[in-house]
Parts: sequence; C-alpha cells; structure tokens
Amino acid sequence: MAPNEEGGGEALLPDLPRGPLDAYRARASFSWKELALFWEGEDMLRLKKSIFSALESDPVFARPGRGLPVERLRELTFLRCRRLLQLDMLRADVLLRSPLRLLALVTGLGMYDWSLAVKAFLHTFVFGSAIFNSGSERHLKYIPKIFNMEIFGCFALTELSHGSNTKAVRTTAHYDPATEEFVIHSPDFEAAKFWVGNMGKTATHAVVFAQLYVPGGQCHGLHPFLVQIRDPKTLLPMPGVMVGDIGEKLGQNGLDNGFAMFHKVRIPRQDLLNRTGDVTPEGTYVTRFQDSRQRFGASLGGLSAGRVCIVGMAVANLKLAVCIALRFSATRRQFGPADGEEIPVLEYQLQQWRLLPYLAAAYALDHFSKSLFLDLVALQQGLHRDDQSARQAELGREIHALASAGKPLASWTAQRGIQECREACGGHGYLAVNRLGDLRNDNDPNSTYEGDNNVLLQQTSNYLLALLDREGADPGGARFESPLKSVDFLAAYPALLGRRFAAASLQDCLDSAVPLAAYEWLVCYLLRESRQQLAREKRAGSSDFDARNNSQAYCCRPLALAFLELTVLRRFHQHTRQPGVPPPLRAVLRQLSALYGLWSLSQHSALLYRGGYFSGERAGKMLEDAILELCSQLKDDAVALVDVLAPPDFVLDSPIGRADGQLYRNLWGAVLQQPRVLERPSWWPEFAASKPAAGVASSKL
Amino acid sequence: MAPNEEGGGEALLPDLPRGPLDAYRARASFSWKELALFWEGEDMLRLKKSIFSALESDPVFARPGRGLPVERLRELTFLRCRRLLQLDMLRADVLLRSPLRLLALVTGLGMYDWSLAVKAFLHTFVFGSAIFNSGSERHLKYIPKIFNMEIFGCFALTELSHGSNTKAVRTTAHYDPATEEFVIHSPDFEAAKFWVGNMGKTATHAVVFAQLYVPGGQCHGLHPFLVQIRDPKTLLPMPGVMVGDIGEKLGQNGLDNGFAMFHKVRIPRQDLLNRTGDVTPEGTYVTRFQDSRQRFGASLGGLSAGRVCIVGMAVANLKLAVCIALRFSATRRQFGPADGEEIPVLEYQLQQWRLLPYLAAAYALDHFSKSLFLDLVALQQGLHRDDQSARQAELGREIHALASAGKPLASWTAQRGIQECREACGGHGYLAVNRLGDLRNDNDPNSTYEGDNNVLLQQTSNYLLALLDREGADPGGARFESPLKSVDFLAAYPALLGRRFAAASLQDCLDSAVPLAAYEWLVCYLLRESRQQLAREKRAGSSDFDARNNSQAYCCRPLALAFLELTVLRRFHQHTRQPGVPPPLRAVLRQLSALYGLWSLSQHSALLYRGGYFSGERAGKMLEDAILELCSQLKDDAVALVDVLAPPDFVLDSPIGRADGQLYRNLWGAVLQQPRVLERPSWWPEFAASKPAAGVASSKL
Repeated sequence: MAPNEEGGGEALLPDLPRGPLDAYRARASFSWKELALFWEGEDMLRLKKSIFSALESDPVFARPGRGLPVERLRELTFLRCRRLLQLDMLRADVLLRSPLRLLALVTGLGMYDWSLAVKAFLHTFVFGSAIFNSGSERHLKYIPKIFNMEIFGCFALTELSHGSNTKAVRTTAHYDPATEEFVIHSPDFEAAKFWVGNMGKTATHAVVFAQLYVPGGQCHGLHPFLVQIRDPKTLLPMPGVMVGDIGEKLGQNGLDNGFAMFHKVRIPRQDLLNRTGDVTPEGTYVTRFQDSRQRFGASLGGLSAGRVCIVGMAVANLKLAVCIALRFSATRRQFGPADGEEIPVLEYQLQQWRLLPYLAAAYALDHFSKSLFLDLVALQQGLHRDDQSARQAELGREIHALASAGKPLASWTAQRGIQECREACGGHGYLAVNRLGDLRNDNDPNSTYEGDNNVLLQQTSNYLLALLDREGADPGGARFESPLKSVDFLAAYPALLGRRFAAASLQDCLDSAVPLAAYEWLVCYLLRESRQQLAREKRAGSSDFDARNNSQAYCCRPLALAFLELTVLRRFHQHTRQPGVPPPLRAVLRQLSALYGLWSLSQHSALLYRGGYFSGERAGKMLEDAILELCSQLKDDAVALVDVLAPPDFVLDSPIGRADGQLYRNLWGAVLQQPRVLERPSWWPEFAASKPAAGVASSKL
Repeated sequence: MAPNEEGGGEALLPDLPRGPLDAYRARASFSWKELALFWEGEDMLRLKKSIFSALESDPVFARPGRGLPVERLRELTFLRCRRLLQLDMLRADVLLRSPLRLLALVTGLGMYDWSLAVKAFLHTFVFGSAIFNSGSERHLKYIPKIFNMEIFGCFALTELSHGSNTKAVRTTAHYDPATEEFVIHSPDFEAAKFWVGNMGKTATHAVVFAQLYVPGGQCHGLHPFLVQIRDPKTLLPMPGVMVGDIGEKLGQNGLDNGFAMFHKVRIPRQDLLNRTGDVTPEGTYVTRFQDSRQRFGASLGGLSAGRVCIVGMAVANLKLAVCIALRFSATRRQFGPADGEEIPVLEYQLQQWRLLPYLAAAYALDHFSKSLFLDLVALQQGLHRDDQSARQAELGREIHALASAGKPLASWTAQRGIQECREACGGHGYLAVNRLGDLRNDNDPNSTYEGDNNVLLQQTSNYLLALLDREGADPGGARFESPLKSVDFLAAYPALLGRRFAAASLQDCLDSAVPLAAYEWLVCYLLRESRQQLAREKRAGSSDFDARNNSQAYCCRPLALAFLELTVLRRFHQHTRQPGVPPPLRAVLRQLSALYGLWSLSQHSALLYRGGYFSGERAGKMLEDAILELCSQLKDDAVALVDVLAPPDFVLDSPIGRADGQLYRNLWGAVLQQPRVLERPSWWPEFAASKPAAGVASSKL
C-alpha cells in the first residue's frame, strides 16, 4: 500500500508536527512513511497504533510524573496490568493469529514501561507457558484463571545462592504416599527462591523448581511444581510460606521481584507439572525420558523463548535511545564556524560517528529480532506436533545457539548505545525526565537474567566447535547445513582462512558484502584459534572443565559474538537486497546495512590484521574512511530514520526527543511541571537554625 | 612505620573480620597493611580514618535505607553538609597544610555519598575559590560567611541552551552609572541558568557569569558577578529572581541542581568579581589584560581544578566498584569440575579477565590522580605569587592538557568498570542495596560536566599538535621539554616511528616497560596520522573549523587518550620502580603496572598492527597471553589488593562487598531490613476487585 492512498496510510501514519526538525526532514532521501510501511507492514503498524492509542486514551496509563515511592509504583503497575487483562490485550489466542503480534505487544508495552510489560508477560506467557508446556491435561484448568486473574503467577527457579548453575538449586520436594502430597521445603535461606518477578507482592501461585525425591530417598532431579503461595482473597501468605519483596532494583521498580522460603509446604500430587516426569500415587517415578540429562534439558527448554524475547526488548530500548539522542542532536546547536551561527551538533562528524552506528544497529538488530522470533515460532510448532525429525532437532540446536549469543549481543549493544546516547545529550541526558536513565536502568538486567551473557555465549561457541568436530570426521567438509543456513558457510572451512581483504577503493567498501566476507573469514579464524587453544590446554593436562574455561576470554567468547554479528549482518544484508524493497528505499537501507557491518567489524580490526586478512595501512584506514563516509551519507536521513522507529511522544516520553523538535520549550515545560519546583524547601527553617560557629568546633583532622 | 609496631599500625589499620575471604587473604603474596601504609602514607590513613569515624559516629550520617523521596534526600544532604561545617571539616586553612588532604576529603566524603561531597565542595571550594580567585580585596568579606553559613553559594555558568560553548552564554549585565549598579538579566528562558548545583533549593548567593555591557552598548564579554538569589532568613527568592529546582537526575539526587532567570535584577557595582576586568563608577571598563581572549581564559582558569578533582572522584568510584565485585567473586561459588564442589567465580579466567584489569586501573589512576593534584597545587602556588615565567606558563598548558584528557580517561574507565562490576555480580549486582547502581549513576555526570569528555579531549590533542608545530621550526627536534616531562619523549619524534615490538617471550612481556615503549610509538603514530589528516582536509579546502572536526574520530581523539594512558602508565611504572618501594611489595605492584599497561594497550592492537609496530600473529597473541598470565598471577592477591582500597563497611555500604565476606548472610539481612518486606501490599483489596471477565471486554486488536 502506498503511504498516501486515501484512508490507509494517512490514518495509520499521521503527519509529524512542524518545527525545528523540518530542515532535516526535508533533506531526507526517502519518505519515512514509505519506509515505515515497508519495515513494519500495515498489519503491524495498525497493531502498534491500537496498542499505543489504548494506552494514551486510558487514565490509568497516564504518565504520573517522577518520584513515586516504590510501593505506589508497584500498585500502579498492578492496576495497569489488570487493565490490560480487562481489555483482553494479552489473550494468547488473538495474538497467536500472527506470531509477530506477541513480540509487537511485548515491545510496544515495554516502550511505554518495562515494569508493566515484564509483569504482564511473566504472569501470562512465562507462568502460562510453564504450565502449558511443562504440565499436562490436568493443569489446563489453570490457564483461564490466569486471564481472569483468579490467580496471579510467577516462575521460581533462581535461588539466593544459585542463578546460572540452575541444576544445583536446593529446594526439595519429597513425595509422601500416605497423603499423596509433595512436601516443598527450603533447607536454609541460601536456598530461598530469589529474584522471582511478581513474587514480591502480587503472585498467588508459583511454578517452583525443586529436586524431586521419592520414598526411599532417591532424587530424580529438578522438576517444576505448582505451589500456591498466597490467598487470592487477602494476598496473605499461605501457611509455611515466607514470601517477601527483595526491594529496590536499579530499574524496573514497578515490578515486584520477590523471595520465598518454604517450610514443609504440602501440595497435592497432581500439582507436579508432569510433562517430563511423574510420580504414581504409590510413589514410583515414571518418565518418558531415558536419562536425567535429557529430562533436564526438556524441562528447561522453555527458557530459550525468553532469550529471543529479550533480543526484542533490548532492541526496543536501543530504538528509543537513538530517537531521543538524534532528535536532540538535530536541534541542539553548539559552536560553529568562527563568528557564524551555531550549528546542530549532528553536523559534527564526531557526533555522527558516536550515534549513527547505533541507529544502524537498531535497524539490523530489529530485523534479526523479528526473523529469529519467527524461527522460534516454527520450532515451537514442531514441538507441539511432536516432530521427532533430525531437522527439528537441528533447528532446535541452531536456534539455541542463535538465541544464546543473540541476547548478549543485543543487550550489550543496547546498553552501550544507551550510554553513548545519554552522553551525546550532554547534561540534559542526565536529567531523569528525558528518560535515558530509565532506559539504561531498565535495559540493564537483560545482560544478566535468563542466563548471564558471558555464560550463554559458551553455548554458542560450544555449538560451533561441536559442528566442526562432527564434520571433522568427514574431511570433505561438505555437510555443513543447518535449517536456517547460519553455518552453511563453514562448508568452506578451512579454505576460507585463505581469503583476503580485496576492496580496491573506498567506494567498494560502502557495501555490506565487504564486512560479510570479512566476517566469514573472522569466524573461521576464531574457530581455528579456539580449537587450537583447547587442544593446547588439553595437551598441558587440563581437564575438560579447565580447558573450556581457559579458552573463553580471547577465543570462544569473541567467536560466539563474531558469529552472531555475522548472522545479524547476513540477514540484514539479504533483507535490504530482496526484490521487494521499494526502489526509493534501497539506497538508505543498504547504507544502514553497510554501516552496521563495517562498524561492528571494526571492533575486530586487530584480529583481521593479526590473522593476515588485512595487511598494510590502507585496509584499516579504508574501513575507517568507509564508516565516516557512510555516517556522512546517513546524517541527513537520520531524523527520518528515527521517525520510522519512534513511538508517539506519549510513549517515547522524553521532552528532548519529541517529534516537534522544540527541544527547549519541551524541556522547560517539563521542568516547570514538576511538583514544588519553585517552592522553597519544606525544611527551610533549618537553614537559619544551628549555624556553624566558625572556628569553635573542631574535628581535629 | 612498620604495620605491626605497637600503637600506630594496629590502631590505624584494624584487622579484618575472619570469614570466607580468609582463604584468599591467606594466599596473598604481601601484607595488605604494609601496602596500605606505602600507598597512602600514615598521615593520609589517619585523615581518612578520622573522616570515616566522624561519619560513622554521628547519627545524622546514619544510612537511612533506600527509597527516600527527593525532598527528604535533599534535606538530609543539607543537614549533613551543615554538620560538616559545624565540625569544621571543610576548613581550607587546615586542609591546605597538606594539599592531598583536600583530595582525600572530597573523595572520602564521596565514597560515603556523592551528593554530600559535591554539595559541600561546590559551596566551599568552587563558590569560595570563584570569589577568592576572581574577586579582589573587596570580596574577601564573603569568605568567612561561607564557612559560618551566613550565605550558601553556587556557581552559575551553564544555561539551558549553552553548556560546552560557554562563550555564547546570553545572560547580560548592563552597567547603570546613575545608581552605580549592574542590571542582571536573562533575555529569555533559553538563557536561564540551568544545571547549577545548590541552586535548586539551598543557595542564597550565586556567582553568575554574564556578558558585561557598559553605557553606550559595548560588550566586554563574560564576567562573573556575585548575585544574591535568596533571603538567608527565609530562603525565599529575591525580587526579580525566578529560581527553582530542575528535578530528578539519574544520580546525585541529594544535590539540588537548579535554574534561575533574572528579571532586571540590580546589584551593586562592587559585586562584579573584578580580577580580570572592572568598571569605574562612571562606567569605563578597565582591565589588566590586553585582549578579551586572554581575559576570558583567565576568568575560566578556575575550571581546570574541577577537572583534576573529577579524576579523583572517578577513581574513588572505580575503587568502590572493584572492592564490591572482587569480594563478591571470591565468595560466590557457581559450577565446578564435574561433580566436585562449586568454586568461587574468581577462579574462572573469564571473571579474572573482566575484573582484574579494572583493579589495576584503579591503582594506576589513583596514583595519577594524586600526582596530578600535587602538580596542580604547584601551578596554583605559582599563580598566587604571580609567577610570570615561561616555565609557569608552560606548566599551565601541560596541566591543562593532562586534566583535559585525564577527566575523560578516568571517568570513562570508571563508568565501564562499574558496569563490568555490576554485570560480574550477576543478578545481585542489579539489586539497589548492593550500591553498584548508585555508583554508576553518581559517576555518570563525570563524563559530561566540567567540560564534555569528547570536547575536552580536543584540548589535549590541540596541545600536542601545537607542540609539534612549534618544534617543527627546529628540525633538530631536541627542544621537547615540559615541566612535568610528559612530552619529553617527543624529542625522538619522528625517529620513534621506526621502533618495533621487540619482546622475545611471554616472560619479557610481563613488564610495564613493554607497553610503555609501545605507547611512545603509538602516540607518535597518532600524532603523525592526525597531522596528515588535518593537512588532507586543508588541501581539500576545509576551513580550520571543519578540518579540526573531521579529524577527531580516528585521529585526534585516540591521540589524546593514548597520550594520557601513556602518562598514567609512565607515572605508575616509575612509582613502582622507585627505590622506596618495600621489597615485599615490588612484585605485586609491578604486576599491576604491567597489567594496566598491557590491557590499555590491547585496545589499540589494530593500530599497532596497522602502523607496523606489531607484525605476525605472535605479537598480538603474546599481548593477550601476558594479560591472562598477569590476571592469573594477581588472582590470589586480588582480595588483599581491594582490602587496601576499601573504606570501612559503613562507607562501602554494600552487603555483597563487606569485609567479612559473608555474602549471603549480609544480603539476606539487608533484604529483611527493608520496610514492609513481608507485609502484603497496601493495595491488596484491588486484587480481589474488578477482576477481568475473560472474553467480555475486547480491545479490538
């Protein structure tokens, strides 16, 4: 649909207000509405518009101003979450008509407020799918109770002393055949469930992971149990449950993370979520899995979905940050040619170089996030129809590898990008009302929850190394094929190691094919380095455990990241090359793709030189010149590019980032709206009281 | 003094509590008390102890728990600041007996709470020295009023629309000879003074920078005026002054940053701070400077001191962060060899590699901070005795260059280090009570205030380029000498460009002489690159302004940073080599120095290869191996090294970082101490009310 067709485009994408950003908007090489339609599709634009309109028109979602106490923030988030349920906005059946709708809902709500998005998401999808995926027929009755809020859920895996090493959690569930009950117990406070979202103040039910013991004392490993922790009528804890709030976090303070200790809490046998293993009334353990390792993998499989979602969450934060910083940069003027008018800071090459790569990254990672989400949906459809094919298993491994490095790459890129945006806005970036602090604080846990980034990266490097070991048996090396084709290029390993940088001119470099080729070499190089390092460690007598640990810093870790950067770049490159791209958009999308690729690659320049891919001064300089040239080409498109990504002002919620570009009016207005801004402080009498008598007291320093 | 001598060492450095950290403490290669004495000196240890004891023993400094509203935070910070004045802890005459005492006071107070330190520092030293240094005899009467709090001060330069470009500030001061008054006026809200610390709620007086106009309309440029903004009896604003609070910031919320607009506010002629220029009663402008540029420089000279202090402030934050993260890492156990006991995460090479370089940086930058502070004191002593020598001028330029890149290097290193520490503590790093969030938020403004980091770096590269241009006239190049010897190595430019990496073995690399030599080459290389880039721009027809701007990203900016890293490393290297280092401390200090140097240098590996300093795979690998080897050597010393840096637990204020190493007990205790932790939420009836009726409402998504 063309953006100016009657009705459609106009209603969906209203014109932006006139103002100081007009100059840049007029210089854009393309129509932002056309790109928005191409990038999101009409269906998704319509969905986002309806989400944002629902929020903006309902008083419970009104922005309350800053400085609310944590208790009130949590109340507000709860009331908003209830309102989402009342509005039926979270219904899985509606959302699953088009899988991307779920991602759009989570990130759309998150752009408004992460505490709300995470609270709603944990209750409905994480708690809901834990029951749906880990339970059986007998647990389906709980699903409608989630949506009509008879119960409120949380997912309790992490303990005070165990996070990454989930297998080592210490909560126990002993089966008592006399009463046909499990006894849930926390041996001590170090085994308290901890960090659990929604547990602090709201949840009535928890999916609790505990070590399952049968009579006779045999332990069958970690299993999920549905445990009631509070009375839904009173929100008072159930007997034997000590449940509380872990307190203020660096961000997401509308969400109540909590802890719980269980003192011999009895639950019916049926409340074991028994998909992977069950206990008969008499106390016999039965499972359809042959070994406990396989069972453990299956019971935690649901966690991968979380990682894919986090990619999207991090991207949403990065988008908001670049919108704010680039609109600010296009309107903030500082210095200029001698005695001339001051110029927008976006005109400075340094400011472009600081910000535009993150704009390109926002586009590249956004595309990756959506495409990986669709891959995940395909995987889950296979799981639900119990697909036992080799392809399905391979797809599972591939997506696991992509999600395990995708979350680190996206969350770190967002975190660094937000920090750069905050600094690029100077002092005004440090003012809370401009929201860059909230973005930083709310994005921050993406690096450590649902799997610590550094630990997760090992999953991806292990996947790549295992592929190579597997194929090593076949010296032809021709069998590298994965369902999503992420690793197919490895068919040419190790021949690829002979590839060299070939761009002859700066002009040649302005194409994402250049970094793509370099990344293929780089991943092969890091694969070889990692294998050699592992082999060296083994030869020196290290155990597997030590060899692995001593190969991370400079081998396996950069291997996993480079592989993911390559994958993100390849998908973006292909997307910008597909025939469906409207001709007026081709140039700008290819510039973004080239900039993302070259800029990411430039972090690895040392390896490109060291391994011989680059030689001579010229290669490295060409890379830098190409990055600066692309920044300069994209500078006039930057405002239109963020217009495509930016949610409405109400959602963006940043005076310096509003669409009208009235930087100072908006900021000044926001400052004056704050409570008691001009009043003297309540404690003013203290100023006159108890003046220090200079020289009388002495601290004897 | 030996640490175990009766009385002295024992009282000054009490033994640390026994606990889970004992294992690492027992493995340390040195006595932490001996290092503390060497590193700080007995006098400074005594001072710090007295500061920390004064805080810990006075109820007004008790830690009030989290979640205080901003108004209450500001009251508390004010009351604490008053208490410091009552205790005479801020008296300049006492502190200046030993200049390092001032730095120790600011950073010691800052380790306790940055809002308090900055509030007190702005009032006494920034406001006080602005009057003392920019005023004259007639203004000295204000100094005692600062210390007995008759008045409360702030320093008002930045405006809403002008920060970095201070020359462009738009507040005016028109002289009216009829009444012998200046009329201070803000032409519009964009010229409102903004961001001014202490102005929000507390200050009664401001040093206001305004464009000075004499009758007839001639403007003599920016000058400082002492303007009363509030009545000290009532804290109500003075007539014509609209003064208020800019609201919540990302951090330092105990400090009241404010704004002010002046509507034709009249002040006596005498309240012009007239050191650089004055107006006679009749309205004639008189100055001892010949041109306005020189005058402008002199009037802003006081700002350099701020930058040197910020280096120290950033270092203090980095120290706190590494103390928390390393004590956590030594006590947090996660995973281990198959079926074996879990091991402390500090045993993982990756964790060492993430954290130990920041520990080394904390030591290196701490030494730099103190030595630069002493240099600054020498400079200011010269200023006060009106030293007009060439050496004094050269010293001024050199310190300006060091401070202008020192602030960026220190603030960014701290910011990244804090983020790494926060992530290295996993989820628990995200809990507010553990303080890493506060450190990040409180350190953050160090990157943008007192000169934006990226803008400041240009001062340093300009200094280096100007040196080269000046010496270019003398082809012998033998006259590179600066008072602090930071640039003396440039005497060998460009011959140094022929130097090559020469270490033959890993063992050779474990010495800071290796990165030192590499850095000398690197700075010369970046100098040459910068000059060539500037020349290219000029040849292509760019103006000076454009040529400069288009040479920052990959030339001048890394030049300034590399020069500062070299300087920091050289000073640390020399410090660890001096004969006074007690023999038992030599090994560990040299390891720290080598690790800091190699790790910093490794960020520039691409340039080392590109410029031919490195060639072949071996050089780059050797650098990495050396970093990992030093991490492994320092791992067992890490806890003792942070014991030297750590303030008492009361000041560190982080349950996971306490000296007793009782990670979980302390954390659990802190969580349970929070208000209403186990109570149901006040809004519990909302849970039962207005349940969503599933399927009835519909959002029409």
